[in-house]
Amino acid sequence: MLILAVSVSAQKSENFIQYVNPLIGTQKMGHTFPGATVPFGSVQLSPDTDEQPILIGGKYNKETYKYCAGYNYDDSTIVGFSHTHFSGTGHSDLGDFLIMPTVGELQLDPGAKDNPKSGFRSRFSHSTEIAEPNYYKVLLEDDKILAELTTTTRVGFHQYTFPASDNAHIILDLMHGIYNYDDKNVWTFVRVENDHTIVGFRQTNGWARTRTVYFAMEFSKPFKSYGFKDFQRSQYNGFWRKFDQSKNFPEMAGKQIRAYFDFATKQDEKIQVKFALSPVSTEGAMKNLQTETPDWNFEKVKKAGQDSWNKELGKIAVTADSKEDLVNFYTAMYHASLSPTVYMDADGKYKGLDQNVHSATGFTNYTTFSLWDTYRALHPYFNIIQPSRNRDMIRSMMAHYDQSVHKMLPVWSHYANENWCMIGYHSVSVIADAIVTGNLTGIEAEVALAASVQTARTKYYDGLEFYMKLGYVPEDKNGTSVSKTLEYAYDDWAIAQAAKKLGKTAIYNEFIKRSENWKNVYDSSVGFTRPKMSNGKFGEKFDPLKTEGQGFIEGNSWNYSLYVPHNPAEMIEMMGGKEKFAKHLDELFTMHLPDEFFAETEDITREGIIGGYIHGNEPSHHVAYLYNWTNQPWKTQERVRMILKHQYHASPDGLGGNDDCGQMSAWFILSSLGFYPVAPASGEYQIGSPSIKTAVLKLENGKTLTIEAKNQSDKNVYVEKVTVNGQPLDRIFIKYSEIMNGGKIVFWMSDTPAPK
Amino acid sequence: MLILAVSVSAQKSENFIQYVNPLIGTQKMGHTFPGATVPFGSVQLSPDTDEQPILIGGKYNKETYKYCAGYNYDDSTIVGFSHTHFSGTGHSDLGDFLIMPTVGELQLDPGAKDNPKSGFRSRFSHSTEIAEPNYYKVLLEDDKILAELTTTTRVGFHQYTFPASDNAHIILDLMHGIYNYDDKNVWTFVRVENDHTIVGFRQTNGWARTRTVYFAMEFSKPFKSYGFKDFQRSQYNGFWRKFDQSKNFPEMAGKQIRAYFDFATKQDEKIQVKFALSPVSTEGAMKNLQTETPDWNFEKVKKAGQDSWNKELGKIAVTADSKEDLVNFYTAMYHASLSPTVYMDADGKYKGLDQNVHSATGFTNYTTFSLWDTYRALHPYFNIIQPSRNRDMIRSMMAHYDQSVHKMLPVWSHYANENWCMIGYHSVSVIADAIVTGNLTGIEAEVALAASVQTARTKYYDGLEFYMKLGYVPEDKNGTSVSKTLEYAYDDWAIAQAAKKLGKTAIYNEFIKRSENWKNVYDSSVGFTRPKMSNGKFGEKFDPLKTEGQGFIEGNSWNYSLYVPHNPAEMIEMMGGKEKFAKHLDELFTMHLPDEFFAETEDITREGIIGGYIHGNEPSHHVAYLYNWTNQPWKTQERVRMILKHQYHASPDGLGGNDDCGQMSAWFILSSLGFYPVAPASGEYQIGSPSIKTAVLKLENGKTLTIEAKNQSDKNVYVEKVTVNGQPLDRIFIKYSEIMNGGKIVFWMSDTPAPK
Repeated sequence: MLILAVSVSAQKSENFIQYVNPLIGTQKMGHTFPGATVPFGSVQLSPDTDEQPILIGGKYNKETYKYCAGYNYDDSTIVGFSHTHFSGTGHSDLGDFLIMPTVGELQLDPGAKDNPKSGFRSRFSHSTEIAEPNYYKVLLEDDKILAELTTTTRVGFHQYTFPASDNAHIILDLMHGIYNYDDKNVWTFVRVENDHTIVGFRQTNGWARTRTVYFAMEFSKPFKSYGFKDFQRSQYNGFWRKFDQSKNFPEMAGKQIRAYFDFATKQDEKIQVKFALSPVSTEGAMKNLQTETPDWNFEKVKKAGQDSWNKELGKIAVTADSKEDLVNFYTAMYHASLSPTVYMDADGKYKGLDQNVHSATGFTNYTTFSLWDTYRALHPYFNIIQPSRNRDMIRSMMAHYDQSVHKMLPVWSHYANENWCMIGYHSVSVIADAIVTGNLTGIEAEVALAASVQTARTKYYDGLEFYMKLGYVPEDKNGTSVSKTLEYAYDDWAIAQAAKKLGKTAIYNEFIKRSENWKNVYDSSVGFTRPKMSNGKFGEKFDPLKTEGQGFIEGNSWNYSLYVPHNPAEMIEMMGGKEKFAKHLDELFTMHLPDEFFAETEDITREGIIGGYIHGNEPSHHVAYLYNWTNQPWKTQERVRMILKHQYHASPDGLGGNDDCGQMSAWFILSSLGFYPVAPASGEYQIGSPSIKTAVLKLENGKTLTIEAKNQSDKNVYVEKVTVNGQPLDRIFIKYSEIMNGGKIVFWMSDTPAPK
Repeated sequence: MLILAVSVSAQKSENFIQYVNPLIGTQKMGHTFPGATVPFGSVQLSPDTDEQPILIGGKYNKETYKYCAGYNYDDSTIVGFSHTHFSGTGHSDLGDFLIMPTVGELQLDPGAKDNPKSGFRSRFSHSTEIAEPNYYKVLLEDDKILAELTTTTRVGFHQYTFPASDNAHIILDLMHGIYNYDDKNVWTFVRVENDHTIVGFRQTNGWARTRTVYFAMEFSKPFKSYGFKDFQRSQYNGFWRKFDQSKNFPEMAGKQIRAYFDFATKQDEKIQVKFALSPVSTEGAMKNLQTETPDWNFEKVKKAGQDSWNKELGKIAVTADSKEDLVNFYTAMYHASLSPTVYMDADGKYKGLDQNVHSATGFTNYTTFSLWDTYRALHPYFNIIQPSRNRDMIRSMMAHYDQSVHKMLPVWSHYANENWCMIGYHSVSVIADAIVTGNLTGIEAEVALAASVQTARTKYYDGLEFYMKLGYVPEDKNGTSVSKTLEYAYDDWAIAQAAKKLGKTAIYNEFIKRSENWKNVYDSSVGFTRPKMSNGKFGEKFDPLKTEGQGFIEGNSWNYSLYVPHNPAEMIEMMGGKEKFAKHLDELFTMHLPDEFFAETEDITREGIIGGYIHGNEPSHHVAYLYNWTNQPWKTQERVRMILKHQYHASPDGLGGNDDCGQMSAWFILSSLGFYPVAPASGEYQIGSPSIKTAVLKLENGKTLTIEAKNQSDKNVYVEKVTVNGQPLDRIFIKYSEIMNGGKIVFWMSDTPAPK
């Protein structure tokens, strides 16, 4: 559908959004959502096609996993449209405030997938579905209601075109959520302020343990009546003696409630809904609504958001061989602009990690930091294309640190909570990258470095006390110990780089020493890293193909043993030298991973691997670039192009693994441009093989960088030479300064591997 | 114990608190608490002797009722000390943040009453118990820990004297509460900020539907370790994979948790705990703690609070025949100064009814408005003795109104919630009383009147639409209809009086007409009020002795039919004239109420009735004064003295019914002084029979009123004449102005009834 075998350009057009297909990744493992949002929007308003409780009878429900972003392309029914979604995660939360329009007899149960008439859900078809940046449209077939969605940063704007009905409803479902448990809803509260305005909140105990989202909602026309049902009313409550609260009673509250609002509609009558969120209060939500959507003008809101997307996407104007290449590129840019999300009211107030209300002074506060993923390429990409926004994200991380009772930077944080997901303390890498590249300076840099150091010394965190004492995390004390040891070592190196830049010698010395700890888990007798016990001996059980119970997480030893991004040269030496190592890499990319071991990898499809190389999970994201440290850098070029081509497609099932809040997409963007930060905070970007024809980067400093891949084609994947402003590059990486100074970088491509 | 048969005086002493016995009312039906508080304190820190879930197996648990104030004098064990308590209510809530010190093996269950060793509760004895205003002391016998409590407005100050132990604990129980359900706790959150500071909150769904209380807690010495147990951990939570959160992990959260802090103590070592509350945030609680208790000086805090009590109680300096009389009087004043309670941070911030944070500008915000009780005598008493505080309470009621989605004044409100308990809209009476007496003026009075009118026109409230249409609440549409009709009629009259004062003729006309609606439920064929149906006919079922299912609440027709406080003259006329009515009243006071009907009265003991007159419930509180409208006012004098003598005793079981947030006590105070506001907002106070010898009222306007009851004794209960500043009073009531102008009112008492 989207493939056009002609050379096409987005460069001269301001219409970049035409190349974005939000449906990419909504099938299989991508875990993206197709709905409407502005860049980094607080509201990400999207259809949910089902909701599955995470625990059924005490057991983890595997179906739940498909609904990390609420929507699955394979489904044929829509339950409704909710306002918050993660993009590309492998665990989930959110899905707040589901809105669903219906006509006919009121139904307050969603009903079953295979029998949509049993509830308020509706069948839909992809043929009536349009998904664009900041616009989503679909026909709800059961009731013949056309649904359209758009947003501002803090407001979801719904437009429903109804058939004629005396019995039309808009349901506000506060029970609905993503990754629901029986008791995930802690409390919900709704006030009907007048005949068209509703406010309230939803408080949950999910991935975020103590989380509340406030809302304010306005209808474009008054409802004629309303009511709600409390699906779990077990408590004594005097109210019930005095009123029939179920109908037209303006205060609703409970753990599991669904409200509804009744209308009479004429044929093709549009009812619009503005739905504002706030992290702080219903008062804040109401102010956000009034500030961001003063009018009832759907088209204006849609256009403003799409203009902001064009501005965002226009930061890199590329030409490529095919429309599919452009769609892949701009959809990757789109997906790389969905998180972290703005997390504060229009007036700067937000809820902090301490659950108190704070004011963001001098910065925009963000949340949803999937740092184990995003420190690798997403934040380095931000640090190039929008260093000031990246700095605000760091300021948000510092606010988290200030509010943290542990005095730790975020590990995986969202909505005023630390969920502690995955491993490492990769905030320090994001900070170090900004410091080393001069984007975080002065006292702010010093404080951020101090926070990094403090974080890295938190003894009770995930085996750190052992790591600091023994030089590695012992598997008998703390599982997935090899992954942790390797990642701590890299993070420590990043801290050391920041310390060096700021002239903090003692810190540099401490952490550069710690950064060598990766050596402690390398077993030269087998040529792999492997779990070591607290007695200093390697564990007996070991299979480099296995992941589970082998000291690793989201990657087996074959992949993880390559995780020394800050010192590949020494790693390669240790593993037998350049020749042997190149062969080792060849084997990784060409081996067959037996099903039993594949089953243990998480978050990816069969297509998400190449041989034993697992692109769908992050620990390997730098691996293709490691050939640059051997005598065969052309293999990096070959592999990178292979990954770009095979792991990303312009179709709903086009992502081989979770997009992970933009990390997978950021890998695509940078690799497409021809370089990749194997070690963020190095200031160096390894040369790969650009897949675009040209790219013009509008840098924040006012400069422009043009990248040209001369003679690039599917065959001409090899880089003969690179010139920077006409001067041949005498190394296999480019520097941050060479990017940011603007000018022109030309990759001279050929069909023949260039000698080292 | 406290009875001293000599004439004693509190007048010249500043030590009024010696006459207060907080244990009065803690046995049987009083529902008072013995713990420490300052006047109208936010923190009311008191021992809880048990906790009983309100619902057991879906059935209302009658034991719960005994623990409305957490403490029952009959018990021999203390579970711990919690920070919030209602005084004298007949339904309950609160009991937040139970603290309990123990030594030895850590026990995190409270254990059973009959086997205190099975848990952290401890035996205690009244012989070691001291209860004073703002000071409570008891020996926890099981572990030989001496517990002492004092407070400031927002901070509870604990002092525990330990034996020598390497294994001492202070338990912070967030599961504990008063009127608990299985799922009353909605969420609790605790952060251990450092080795001596803890903050957090508790959110409940009880009588207040959506209620959160925040705290900050400091220990006088660092704990050596800490931990918690989550008694209801059913949700998935990634935390548990990463940490052992149960020990020394500084973030705790869950629905049902108890935390503990470990210490080593020397013999007789004191550990102090400051525990601040906030309605807004942990930040607010911390600021309250720092503002109100900057030092670690228990004695200083105790003294400051006791000084404030002496100032409060010193507003009326009385002499009386016996110490018991003084104890009854000052304990009544004490109980009349426990609610409403201050509900805002030291900086004026509070949570409003809309769940948003507001700032109280120019007034102190209060909560806990038990208005069905307190409009009768407590607020009229405040309107005399502290009109500015009463005005702030009205301002708090107006803030509630402003924040109410119903645009209604409070009915029964606490902690940013309306619980809708009981009937009527008696806020309007409190407001009208203040307006009529000139204590609420100008635009503020006009706005408050408008709020009263708006409240009284809220159609969907409790039968009001029918009342407005038919002139009565029809029993077939809305139960307890007679009680409602009668009380609405009085409230409407109060609105009319305020309107008259402010020159609002239309409002006056509307509501003075409504105020006559009491006539619509009077059945002259039986001589009682009785339920009327929507067809205009009286219901068939009727027994004036019965309460349940007969159109009444907390009072049968015998009592409730007398509820026309605003027009006794016409009521008496309707009931057959003065002579017949006096006999009717005689019958009420002398009849025998059969057990079957007594069982239906709520909230009182057998001693709480005199004949069929039920003093323990409020609807009859004006009844003894109705003889003043007959030719036998001396019977009012006789009855009032009988009630003063028989319904109030200086012993734990001294209150015959719930103190009801001070209403029972306010009746005692005013009646002891010789007058009572049968119809608040009339500006008139009916003459009864003073039981004090002299009383000096220090009025806020700087004037002093001396009341003298010449020759008063147990026999000399009859009022021969009254002189106001030497001038004989030619009527049976005194006016508000006569009280507030100061000077001297002399009651000339005798042993012979005076002729009318």
